[in-house]
Amino acid sequence: MAQPQNATTQAVQRHRNTSKLIDYADPYFATAHLEGLMALYARPLDGRAVELSTGAAKGRRVVDFVRCSYLGLDNHPAIIEGALETVAQCGALHWSCARTRLNFDFLGQLEEALSNLFSAHVIAYSSVLAANMGALPLLASGHLTGNVKPIMVFDRFAHATLAFHKGTVAEEAEVITIEHNDLEALEVICRENPCVAYICDGVYSMGGAAPVDQLLALQARYGLFLYIDDAHGISLFGDNGEGFARSHFGGELGEHTIIAASLGKGFGASGGILMLGTARQAELFRRFSLPHAFSASPNLAAIGAALASESLHRTSELAMLQQRLRENTKLFDRLFPTPFTHADLPIRTIEIGDELATIGAAKAILDQGFYTSAIFFPTVAKGRAGLRICPTAGHSEAEITALCQFLVETLQTAPH
Amino acid sequence: MAQPQNATTQAVQRHRNTSKLIDYADPYFATAHLEGLMALYARPLDGRAVELSTGAAKGRRVVDFVRCSYLGLDNHPAIIEGALETVAQCGALHWSCARTRLNFDFLGQLEEALSNLFSAHVIAYSSVLAANMGALPLLASGHLTGNVKPIMVFDRFAHATLAFHKGTVAEEAEVITIEHNDLEALEVICRENPCVAYICDGVYSMGGAAPVDQLLALQARYGLFLYIDDAHGISLFGDNGEGFARSHFGGELGEHTIIAASLGKGFGASGGILMLGTARQAELFRRFSLPHAFSASPNLAAIGAALASESLHRTSELAMLQQRLRENTKLFDRLFPTPFTHADLPIRTIEIGDELATIGAAKAILDQGFYTSAIFFPTVAKGRAGLRICPTAGHSEAEITALCQFLVETLQTAPH
Repeated sequence: MAQPQNATTQAVQRHRNTSKLIDYADPYFATAHLEGLMALYARPLDGRAVELSTGAAKGRRVVDFVRCSYLGLDNHPAIIEGALETVAQCGALHWSCARTRLNFDFLGQLEEALSNLFSAHVIAYSSVLAANMGALPLLASGHLTGNVKPIMVFDRFAHATLAFHKGTVAEEAEVITIEHNDLEALEVICRENPCVAYICDGVYSMGGAAPVDQLLALQARYGLFLYIDDAHGISLFGDNGEGFARSHFGGELGEHTIIAASLGKGFGASGGILMLGTARQAELFRRFSLPHAFSASPNLAAIGAALASESLHRTSELAMLQQRLRENTKLFDRLFPTPFTHADLPIRTIEIGDELATIGAAKAILDQGFYTSAIFFPTVAKGRAGLRICPTAGHSEAEITALCQFLVETLQTAPH
Repeated sequence: MAQPQNATTQAVQRHRNTSKLIDYADPYFATAHLEGLMALYARPLDGRAVELSTGAAKGRRVVDFVRCSYLGLDNHPAIIEGALETVAQCGALHWSCARTRLNFDFLGQLEEALSNLFSAHVIAYSSVLAANMGALPLLASGHLTGNVKPIMVFDRFAHATLAFHKGTVAEEAEVITIEHNDLEALEVICRENPCVAYICDGVYSMGGAAPVDQLLALQARYGLFLYIDDAHGISLFGDNGEGFARSHFGGELGEHTIIAASLGKGFGASGGILMLGTARQAELFRRFSLPHAFSASPNLAAIGAALASESLHRTSELAMLQQRLRENTKLFDRLFPTPFTHADLPIRTIEIGDELATIGAAKAILDQGFYTSAIFFPTVAKGRAGLRICPTAGHSEAEITALCQFLVETLQTAPH
């Protein structure tokens, strides 16, 4: 199962083919743009509504099911106030210098507060993209695994901001991609190799989740290192909103797990974080993670918003919003059952298959005033196009009911 | 010169060795941290001063020469006000969704205004890191070069956020690294290959600049594609602040050049941009650049600040600040000449050589109230450590004079 660790193996592996990707997908992108489904520009209205500001639909109010603000926090007054206050108090928004040099003291406060909230060593980044980019080479270097380079095993569905780096990671360690949630294949690799790291999502952006309990069993048995991007799971799970992945751990994160998460999405602010298990790991990241030395931190508005959301996470409002999200997804599932249905996860995907049929369906639903994501290659596999819908705690019962009604009407002739 | 385009060649190339990097650099990082030189936390004071907020130096006021706010704009009241107003007006900071889906209408306004200001098709990103990451695979795909995959030639000093991706780019096209500003080597490659792209910085972060006029001559002669990261050159040059690289182009950017730039640094806001030459290139980036589909846009505070800075770029204040920067760097050069001196570039590096001697010098200067960057591997080559100093338009004559006095005193026994 584990391929021989030599240069030739890596040389024949091709993780990317941007040229072919464009050739296949470009006509569908063109059609989706033409239908006014992609790259919309808008102003926020109350709740999950926005007012479109360009194109033929200018001035129209639509209810959005695209944004991943699962707890509806992205226009929460306390979080916006946190952003405003911090920027106003400092008279500054952004410092252009590496984090290895000079940092806003509010950023130190944020990292301390989040470390406490999530019981981990937390480092903040300008985006999850930046966090992931910095982390993978450090993991591949072997410096987190007793100076043994791990076999880097990627889940086939690991987020694009992880999979992107396979070529770069392959220069440091062996890279293997396994099928989605293929625990059997993963265990074979663990059995045959002294040091293995598994790179996956917590909650997957197109539905589903990692089998974290079983992964922890492999960790206990083989010392498997887990790198879990839980951008879509943060805040939605756990008493402190520690997220889908983190809430599977009883106490400490330990020295064999890193969790990446978003400060946007469920958390409601802007930016990304890593949760690390040990002080030495945090030290290594603060010195050698590429974004630390060669890019900038989240800006002060993001920091202020995140500090406000961190405070909100310590109130009863968090559990109330988590509960409302679950009620809304249950309502959705009752009115429009999908095979992807998972009681606790917020993302619903409806497979239609044909790309153009999908675009047509999304257009018909948008015409009714509801914006959903038409997903097609490269976001999902070719010929497996469909709709992606994110019910949130911020949607009203009436909005979800109406959406489901239009979904039934629109898709009754389409296979799903 | 051009190596054969086959898998074996790529397999034996190793662009990264994170493990060895850490082994070499970690003791110096530890020492620099111990001396209170790295990862400082602070609050902004007026001008270029900050108040340290952690460690033994807590409460101390130091004048900072680390930040790259070359025009001193990062605490300009109009820019901060732009950030505050936009966030307050929208009651939102950040939308967690791909740019291929939903965008703040202010972001569309910003991109239009910057396209007009810089005479290019401008796309904004959350950071230059994200912009570069998205761009390189598209360039390597051949879709910007008539469906011929270019030989991807990197300058050895190209910024870390470009060089990082060599392994990933090598999966799509041949990668060659040439010596810094080695026009001769570049021309040989151009002569022997039908399609070549050169990836370099405009103003280099550790001093110096690309020979843009000669690169344009190669472009005219061979059709060389230029990808220039001008993060450190933006706003400092040109009547509209179009930057070091862009100001070398008479009129249009053309179809063979992309310029990346910062919305922080000289520009004074937060985030990054790409300047593209054609509408079709912009369309491809808006569909297939990874951060567009799989990461988020700059947040609204960054957008509001950038809109305010864009307005400022259209006033006489820009030329006044550019002039003040030149006067301040001239003053520095008069008081402390360095071999790196270039009349118009803002970054000064002083090579000391030994890593520990460098850390000692930076510490002595910090004790006098001036914060400079102690630079060592991997930022510069091993054994070529030194100080990096960024005089800005925001420094007073007295601050620059005092710094130079301490530099002379501290370094008179050290070689430079």
